[in-house]
Amino acid sequence: MDNVRIGLIGVGSMGSAHAMYLHQGEINGAELRAVFDVSEAQRKWARQYLKGVEIFADEDAFFSSDDIDAILIATPHYDHPRLANKAFEHDKHVLCEKPAGVYTKQVREMNELSQSKDLIFSMMYNQRTNPLYMKVRDMIQSGELGEIKRMNWIITNWYRSQSYYDSSSWRATWKGEGGGVLINQCPHQLDLWQWMTDLVPTKIRAFCQFGKNRAIEVEDEVTAYIEHENGATGVFVTTTGEAPGTNRLEIAGDRGKIVVEDERLLFWRLRIAESEFNQQYKGGFGSPECWECTIPVEGTELGHKGITQNFVDAILTGKDLIAPGVEGIKGLTMSNAMQLSTWIDDWVSFPLDEEGYYQHLQDRIKQSTVKKNETMNVLNVKGSH
Amino acid sequence: MDNVRIGLIGVGSMGSAHAMYLHQGEINGAELRAVFDVSEAQRKWARQYLKGVEIFADEDAFFSSDDIDAILIATPHYDHPRLANKAFEHDKHVLCEKPAGVYTKQVREMNELSQSKDLIFSMMYNQRTNPLYMKVRDMIQSGELGEIKRMNWIITNWYRSQSYYDSSSWRATWKGEGGGVLINQCPHQLDLWQWMTDLVPTKIRAFCQFGKNRAIEVEDEVTAYIEHENGATGVFVTTTGEAPGTNRLEIAGDRGKIVVEDERLLFWRLRIAESEFNQQYKGGFGSPECWECTIPVEGTELGHKGITQNFVDAILTGKDLIAPGVEGIKGLTMSNAMQLSTWIDDWVSFPLDEEGYYQHLQDRIKQSTVKKNETMNVLNVKGSH
Repeated sequence: MDNVRIGLIGVGSMGSAHAMYLHQGEINGAELRAVFDVSEAQRKWARQYLKGVEIFADEDAFFSSDDIDAILIATPHYDHPRLANKAFEHDKHVLCEKPAGVYTKQVREMNELSQSKDLIFSMMYNQRTNPLYMKVRDMIQSGELGEIKRMNWIITNWYRSQSYYDSSSWRATWKGEGGGVLINQCPHQLDLWQWMTDLVPTKIRAFCQFGKNRAIEVEDEVTAYIEHENGATGVFVTTTGEAPGTNRLEIAGDRGKIVVEDERLLFWRLRIAESEFNQQYKGGFGSPECWECTIPVEGTELGHKGITQNFVDAILTGKDLIAPGVEGIKGLTMSNAMQLSTWIDDWVSFPLDEEGYYQHLQDRIKQSTVKKNETMNVLNVKGSH
Repeated sequence: MDNVRIGLIGVGSMGSAHAMYLHQGEINGAELRAVFDVSEAQRKWARQYLKGVEIFADEDAFFSSDDIDAILIATPHYDHPRLANKAFEHDKHVLCEKPAGVYTKQVREMNELSQSKDLIFSMMYNQRTNPLYMKVRDMIQSGELGEIKRMNWIITNWYRSQSYYDSSSWRATWKGEGGGVLINQCPHQLDLWQWMTDLVPTKIRAFCQFGKNRAIEVEDEVTAYIEHENGATGVFVTTTGEAPGTNRLEIAGDRGKIVVEDERLLFWRLRIAESEFNQQYKGGFGSPECWECTIPVEGTELGHKGITQNFVDAILTGKDLIAPGVEGIKGLTMSNAMQLSTWIDDWVSFPLDEEGYYQHLQDRIKQSTVKKNETMNVLNVKGSH
């Protein structure tokens, strides 16, 4: 194969951005050959801006096309696993927008099917190309930070006004999106949580606020407390209702503390590990010698294009994936657990009760009273990730 | 009255510091006239360093002395309410070290007795004299921040090695101290939480870790989630097991965000309130104009001496108290609720079930297996507050 012929599903907010860089030839070895969208308005946009690309209105015709090697899925979340499965059945490689799906039960089936096929499957976890988080991962995995004791991520810079929520009929509904800030804005952070640290969550107690700041039925503010296998605790706080918001990640370890904020990575390095100091020290008050280090963070964030390029390279040359598709379930499990913990007003232990979560979600869909204007606007995704 | 004649109870770690500045005449209008301590070692220290001060070994003789107008209590926590009550009964004014007591049931009784007397009663909440927190209070109470939506205080810079815990027989035991980081290190922050904001907590779900980092039976790491009457949520995280630790307070409001960290107060000021922007804005993505402001913080922290001076001024000239004694119950209620929530593994709603908390605490005391070396060292309090 010289070129990977890509079929794109969905040219809404994110999909149209993918379409443009692919169509403009910005991915080496890739060619945008086809687009499928259920909306006539979107297809009209595609016909206008994507000259030479075949535009499909029929799903089966799209999947049956011999002119497509790989499929990029950029639809509303619920359809991700179903479309990925259909692609696998048609022996197409898959690059899937985040989240992997809405509920892990379905994502697990998708993962199982993908593993039975000799196909490339990647998630669009573009934040894994962010040099800041790559460096955090490096510092943890190389042992610089030592055993992790506690994490705290305040990620509240997702400001969304009511007009954002009113812009699409599927947004911020149980039926259309299956959640709010957790499923739409936070999949990257929930992915990075485990990717950076290799921590394994064991249980979660979370407090979602549904429609606290906006006239929506899903969660727009979340505080979650997370315990991990190694004893590390964690707090994850997010909301779309605050301006200007915060994006501050703190990880405390036996050998110091990492803080990522304002595009900077600071490391407070202990000269000897805290556990060692504690064993030796006899003076009562007093603490280990600590050096405040500014850690160089090199390279630029490759973003969506970086992940798409990596996906294409994996197909053409067997390059390792940055974000293997099967890992999409990890962050989604945390997201599902946070909602479920709120609904049952109790702890959620891992492995997650996937069937239980699914049933609770169905109840929310049934009880929904949301009636939205069916008009759909394509929003400018500047500010989205 | 020209001079307030002060009797000090306890010349251990903190008490000896109070003794020294009082004895050296650093409080205008105050005179250290008597010291009472149950420990012969402490009395020996007092005889050596506090020339001219009467040293008592007998509690009743101390309280019956006609030479004392006001009593400063600097004993282990459990005795605070009992000794304060005894002082009120002897018509002495009271300045009480934090915490007000160990359980609110007892503190409520102390408050009731104090209110039946025409005496000055103050808590040693010296952090209320910290210009940073005074300024935060000013910015909230003047409306600059707008309605509070969310608070987050990471206060983990209380590093204590095992040698600290091993230094006194009463430390970090249910019987001797009634708790760990919440009752010993955090009373100031738990006091400031409500003092700065006027927020009224309605319920708490907390996760205490008992002896996670140290060989102690009480809590040495806490994560608490707090909901308030106005809908604001909050997270409070503390531990004695991390170095270098963090002290970062974030308060998000309708008109912006305050962050206090590294002795600086930053304010991200919204040009128009978020709620107003949200009503007017129709653009989907987009957020209110925000100005990053460095807020001048003037004055120096008056600390313990500032509170003692204020207490003396209140007695002599009727000056308003910075930290009225009856307010000591507010932070203690949060502290009790955090432990109780962990013990019952559930929410704790306010008003707190004071009797329930008391019974749970008694259970912990009964079940304690701690055997400590009875040697008591006076630690240097540098680094304590």
